[in-house]
Amino acid sequence: MFRSIPRVYANIKISFNSSNNLLSKNLIIKNNSFRSISYLSRNNNGVLSRIRTNIIEKRELLINNICKRNLTESPDFEMTIPQSNPIAVSTTLTKVFIDWPDGQTSKFHNIWLRDHCKCDECFHKVTKQRLVDTFKIPEDLESESALPESNGIKIKWSDGHTSFFRWTWLRRHSYDPQFVDFQPFLQKKILWDARIKEYPPTVKYEDVMKSEEGLSNWLLNIDQFGFCFVDGVPPKVEETEELAKRICFIRETHYGRFWDFTSNLEHGDTAYTSLALKAHTDNTYFTDPSGLQMFHLIEFNGTGGSSLLVDGFWAARRLKMTFPEAHKILSTIRIPAHSAGDPNTLIEPTPNAYPILNYNPLTNEIYQIRYNNDDRSTLSHLSSNEVEAFYDALRKWNNILIDKENEYWVKLEPGRALIFNNWRVLHGRAGFTGHRRIIGAYLNWDDYRSKLKISNLTREEIDEMI
Amino acid sequence: MFRSIPRVYANIKISFNSSNNLLSKNLIIKNNSFRSISYLSRNNNGVLSRIRTNIIEKRELLINNICKRNLTESPDFEMTIPQSNPIAVSTTLTKVFIDWPDGQTSKFHNIWLRDHCKCDECFHKVTKQRLVDTFKIPEDLESESALPESNGIKIKWSDGHTSFFRWTWLRRHSYDPQFVDFQPFLQKKILWDARIKEYPPTVKYEDVMKSEEGLSNWLLNIDQFGFCFVDGVPPKVEETEELAKRICFIRETHYGRFWDFTSNLEHGDTAYTSLALKAHTDNTYFTDPSGLQMFHLIEFNGTGGSSLLVDGFWAARRLKMTFPEAHKILSTIRIPAHSAGDPNTLIEPTPNAYPILNYNPLTNEIYQIRYNNDDRSTLSHLSSNEVEAFYDALRKWNNILIDKENEYWVKLEPGRALIFNNWRVLHGRAGFTGHRRIIGAYLNWDDYRSKLKISNLTREEIDEMI
Repeated sequence: MFRSIPRVYANIKISFNSSNNLLSKNLIIKNNSFRSISYLSRNNNGVLSRIRTNIIEKRELLINNICKRNLTESPDFEMTIPQSNPIAVSTTLTKVFIDWPDGQTSKFHNIWLRDHCKCDECFHKVTKQRLVDTFKIPEDLESESALPESNGIKIKWSDGHTSFFRWTWLRRHSYDPQFVDFQPFLQKKILWDARIKEYPPTVKYEDVMKSEEGLSNWLLNIDQFGFCFVDGVPPKVEETEELAKRICFIRETHYGRFWDFTSNLEHGDTAYTSLALKAHTDNTYFTDPSGLQMFHLIEFNGTGGSSLLVDGFWAARRLKMTFPEAHKILSTIRIPAHSAGDPNTLIEPTPNAYPILNYNPLTNEIYQIRYNNDDRSTLSHLSSNEVEAFYDALRKWNNILIDKENEYWVKLEPGRALIFNNWRVLHGRAGFTGHRRIIGAYLNWDDYRSKLKISNLTREEIDEMI
Repeated sequence: MFRSIPRVYANIKISFNSSNNLLSKNLIIKNNSFRSISYLSRNNNGVLSRIRTNIIEKRELLINNICKRNLTESPDFEMTIPQSNPIAVSTTLTKVFIDWPDGQTSKFHNIWLRDHCKCDECFHKVTKQRLVDTFKIPEDLESESALPESNGIKIKWSDGHTSFFRWTWLRRHSYDPQFVDFQPFLQKKILWDARIKEYPPTVKYEDVMKSEEGLSNWLLNIDQFGFCFVDGVPPKVEETEELAKRICFIRETHYGRFWDFTSNLEHGDTAYTSLALKAHTDNTYFTDPSGLQMFHLIEFNGTGGSSLLVDGFWAARRLKMTFPEAHKILSTIRIPAHSAGDPNTLIEPTPNAYPILNYNPLTNEIYQIRYNNDDRSTLSHLSSNEVEAFYDALRKWNNILIDKENEYWVKLEPGRALIFNNWRVLHGRAGFTGHRRIIGAYLNWDDYRSKLKISNLTREEIDEMI
């Protein structure tokens, strides 16, 4: 869908902070694309190591090497985005043509340009909403003149209006042809397996709460790894709640708002028992499953209860590499789910079933895992062949999830909050005995993504994107 | 996808209540399917009329006749669901066959049956979650015996387990072949146009707040018409909030929780101005737009400001009937959207673009309209041909929305709350002058649907469904 252009567009922000786990990135460039990235990373004991990762697909990296040597902490790479001023502009009755220095030509329809005019009359400066009435644009609109200026192009239209479009905006939003999907806020994802236990992404409570940079680093870690620990959190309800709210408001669900749960079966869900829970994502029964989930174990007096994390994006990638047909089944066949444990609740998603592996139809990138085998409803819409293919694919998926190479087991403890992307990372736990009190919250995906972008982009970059 | 069966399965609950707008339903049956339905309905002045509707598609009706004559209030029809006990059972190595009295034969895989076992050992009675470990079921599982009983079938498996399945459950969830999509909680939708102004669905505050039947009727009206007025609401914040909470908790968004807004541009959104707003749905920028929206105008000292409602499902149907190609474009081409008016917000949906008209891929029924032309982001992923087709289709869609035959204009007033389905009904307003104070709330789609089902189904019916 997206064509590459013969330039290097760096998607990766250099972040360097000695108190941050993610210290620097070293981008090795070959044939105009990234092949690998290495990080300096500090583990929980303060030991500095270099982690090397390989790029396995557009925006997906895999940790493939960890070396502990004498390491420096300075970043060894920096990139800038190249200027893309055009070399020629021409028009026809219905279109405007822009020739770029790399030999490409963008073709824009008059109606498209007029509809996207960003002047104060056509676009509200504060609300960022369209003011132009799309339906009052004449169907036979023509450009009377199209004059290139240093930053962009001024076009006078036959309806009397004059528009101005920046070169950078036109380059980014060119649809004929489309260029690379240039999204500066989307970092490459680092896919991981059990080896992550040596260097789990971790930030400090104080940094997150007291500085914008600390917040930004925390959010980038969550975006990249799908989870992050926060050390030094006071093991109390109020302080933990403040930490969650640093990202956005806490999402209310039929379980309430901020959680405080022990194994009392307060709600009709196995989460409220002491049973072992296999790797799953939460809320497969919601149209919009919660985006982030925070856990803070503040009291534990017993045995067992270790927590399990599995990188669902890596599991999906492995399934695709080893059993492409099973991967196709789980990314297309839809599975119904429900939450009906509380007497006053019967929650089901709309549409009533979603695939386990969800890919963005515009970019073909995976964006959401929905998997909880216990919450699966009756399968009554599959064909006979699909039933067989589904159970076979599900077994293969399960085998990857329970592979020791992929399971990251970790003991939660007071003072250390865990936050993870519930659209990517599957979680579970071992059964336990004794008293175990966990507090935490769900956060909305949309509001988390909003904060991630806001804390890592300038207003100018935002305006350029929308 | 779904095959019809030669029986009448009545989806429509008879509801008869002299204080309720929806008094009775008269089902006329022909060729084993419903052709039309007529209602006794009382308008705001208490005048009783009969409204006749035609079925235009599975679960969609259109109001096509209103007659005011001497009318009785008694329901003139009642239906029951036929019993479906089978006439024969047989097994093979891998499947169980059930012959139904209508000549159909359901074929169930052993693995499917074992995985769906609902005994206390395999399915948690309280949480309604699967307890059987799908992955421990032997791949070569066989049935050792399959014995029909009066209510269902008892199957002894080669892994030593015994399951029991009810006939009604097996009939409902048969996948080979699939029967009618029998969902008793989903009423036929009544599509409407401007004529609805004579008989807008209306309930009384007291009924809704004080009785379960009142609540149930309110929810059924919202489900069927996509909106409902509530009369007799005290024009105060607390009482209006209580009304909203009668359905479910109020959804928090970046605008806050319960609204109280005047034209002060408190948030960066044209809703907070006195400008006219064309028919639109809210939250096209959310992955999960709010399901219901409640408005209660409690103060107005000025001119203008009438409210507009348009039935999006009827508009989609008209587009499909008159311009099928344009309908196809708007139900497949994805449109990006954003909310970026507040300085700390950049909300975009995931995936980053959705069609304006959204159909359930399993049932082909429309379930969601996403349309706010002002919140549309830059179109940068369409092909050149799609750009032309899109603008053409959008004009046709707009022409239907602004057709006076479809626009329902109504003056909101203190004491009369409006609630509508934001996934179906488009709303707008005329520009106004003076002081206008509206209070209200967003409610989640999933939680509203849960309440609709819970308040209209028995626990037994719920267990049968999931």
